[in-house]
Amino acid sequence: MALVTIHVSPRPYQAWIENGLLTRAGSVLSELLPQASRIFVVTVPPVRKRWGSKLITSLKASGFTPQVIPMPDGEPTKRLATVEALADKLARLGADRKAVVIALGGGVVGDVTGLLASLYMRGIELVQIPTTVLAQVDASIGGKTAVNLVAGKNLLGTYHHPRVVLIDPTVLKTLPDREFRAGLYEALKCGIIGNIELFLRFEQNRAKILKRDPVELEWLIAQSVRLKAEVVSADEREDGLRRVLNLGHTIGHALEAETGYRRLLHGEAVAWGMIAATNIALSVGRTDSVTAGRIADAVLSLGRLPELNVNSRKILVRLQSDKKTQNGVVHFILPREIGKVEVASDVPSSAVVDAVEELRRLSRGGWVWKKQ
Amino acid sequence: MALVTIHVSPRPYQAWIENGLLTRAGSVLSELLPQASRIFVVTVPPVRKRWGSKLITSLKASGFTPQVIPMPDGEPTKRLATVEALADKLARLGADRKAVVIALGGGVVGDVTGLLASLYMRGIELVQIPTTVLAQVDASIGGKTAVNLVAGKNLLGTYHHPRVVLIDPTVLKTLPDREFRAGLYEALKCGIIGNIELFLRFEQNRAKILKRDPVELEWLIAQSVRLKAEVVSADEREDGLRRVLNLGHTIGHALEAETGYRRLLHGEAVAWGMIAATNIALSVGRTDSVTAGRIADAVLSLGRLPELNVNSRKILVRLQSDKKTQNGVVHFILPREIGKVEVASDVPSSAVVDAVEELRRLSRGGWVWKKQ
Repeated sequence: MALVTIHVSPRPYQAWIENGLLTRAGSVLSELLPQASRIFVVTVPPVRKRWGSKLITSLKASGFTPQVIPMPDGEPTKRLATVEALADKLARLGADRKAVVIALGGGVVGDVTGLLASLYMRGIELVQIPTTVLAQVDASIGGKTAVNLVAGKNLLGTYHHPRVVLIDPTVLKTLPDREFRAGLYEALKCGIIGNIELFLRFEQNRAKILKRDPVELEWLIAQSVRLKAEVVSADEREDGLRRVLNLGHTIGHALEAETGYRRLLHGEAVAWGMIAATNIALSVGRTDSVTAGRIADAVLSLGRLPELNVNSRKILVRLQSDKKTQNGVVHFILPREIGKVEVASDVPSSAVVDAVEELRRLSRGGWVWKKQ
Repeated sequence: MALVTIHVSPRPYQAWIENGLLTRAGSVLSELLPQASRIFVVTVPPVRKRWGSKLITSLKASGFTPQVIPMPDGEPTKRLATVEALADKLARLGADRKAVVIALGGGVVGDVTGLLASLYMRGIELVQIPTTVLAQVDASIGGKTAVNLVAGKNLLGTYHHPRVVLIDPTVLKTLPDREFRAGLYEALKCGIIGNIELFLRFEQNRAKILKRDPVELEWLIAQSVRLKAEVVSADEREDGLRRVLNLGHTIGHALEAETGYRRLLHGEAVAWGMIAATNIALSVGRTDSVTAGRIADAVLSLGRLPELNVNSRKILVRLQSDKKTQNGVVHFILPREIGKVEVASDVPSSAVVDAVEELRRLSRGGWVWKKQ
């Protein structure tokens, strides 16, 4: 079991990572939230079906009388209208300022429920119980909440840190394979950014990881959470250091948008984005070919990624309108060596175009994926 | 001219109060916001018509290229859907993280635009330029933003402090009389809560105030802002001291809700609520009859208030479900003497019922309003 503290003001909080934690959720929360007037569990039907009763049983055993508020599944529900419907439900059920909401689910549930908790009566307590790899290693840590606009993804949101994050890696065993792997790329990203040991584990224990060995997963998730917690603790609002977490995201977001958010899971887009960032780093002389090769190999050997059929010029245009672009300057996070990245604002357009072209080539089988 | 600092973390900000300030807005903002990439002015048609060009001219003269984003007028627009539409507009106009939004208007514009600024890309800079008495003395100070749910008013919102509040009392001269007076009750409230001098001014210079004497209004608004700033600085999140600002609001909100938000302006409801709170204070022995009489007289002599035809038992039930009610206990802010209030959580239901009955009697002409 691991306990990771996220040092943010005015109140630090912890992420608990432990196999089987879901059955202990009630006792943990009754210690942490003695003042809770009511507990509401926001979740989607498939997660509720698999894990809902386990959580509810645990909460009831600790004296809570939880109520489940279902929300529809899928990225299209990540809208303000969903937040409003959930809030109306909370109000009708009599939730007051001492109410607590639990987000039980993946990234969408966490983002929407987080925003709900930050807006309802100007902020009530939130507990994150993430049930996907992506949410466990990334989305549930750091307090970012978001919904989409027609004009773009994640354009509305807040910073609203949970009271606690409860991570039970055993819930990952029922994840569809593609979604499981997509989440692993975010964990791998943590290794590339700042944790060599974590990166090495991907190189050395890949087979066990892909077989979802529980001990392996618990360790891997704890390491990823620790890295993210360190970065967020140093820079809560993404003005400086926190930007390193965007490794692979700059081009990744553009790829997702250019393919209409239909062909790529977020983690898969980040995977392609990390390879692109690595190739850019290589072409501008910020990293060496051995490092670049290891990173590309680590990404590609986790499984086949969807083919990319994108126009590299259009990707370039999308980068200019990214949320993180400031005054028209695109900032890239580039790997220097394993465990070390840096911000670059002077990447020539040609390097970006070349890197995207290389992705297209790779995605069409320019590399051979060796099944474990 | 007055400059009032609101001490909140992580960044204090100031409210400027000065007759004619609107024409200087551009130069003030160019000093305060040198990094602004773009400026967007959110406003409603009637305010735009009267004051839009004055502000735009001033901004342009200081080198900005402001764009106006109109929103529909009126309380029914205070919904998340409005925030979403405005955000989509911002995104389509290319607003990035360094964009600044100005709320030019009354309480609804300030609340909606404030929420917009706090959510767009997880927070961009906000400038409040309030154009009603209510917004100038109360709503624009303190960082509260809000929209309504079907289930209740102001149930969704954030704390998002503006970079600066620019208050030009000369814009009040075109306000409809009823709206002007409704705002004065919030200023009077500040006197009752903690500023004897302000209260005395209402007693002594009532005629000048009601005639909208510019010097008188500038002083009165500056004093009110100063009181609110002191309270907010001491308690940003309404856990303790900030609650005193709710004088008149507990019963006021219930009156507004019970009359379907159609018969009473917010300030008028607060006016009735302050009289009720005063009568409660008198009946539970927390204040004396001279103080109570002075407060009631100060409120009632500002003009005729709408008649109340409400069921006092229903008001009691509504108080139980107020947003600020915690674990079923209703907290009242009660005046002790002029300039001093206290929190009471032990008010018997009978005292509340009696106070509401007294309001009904008063509203039917149990008192005589002497026209100035």
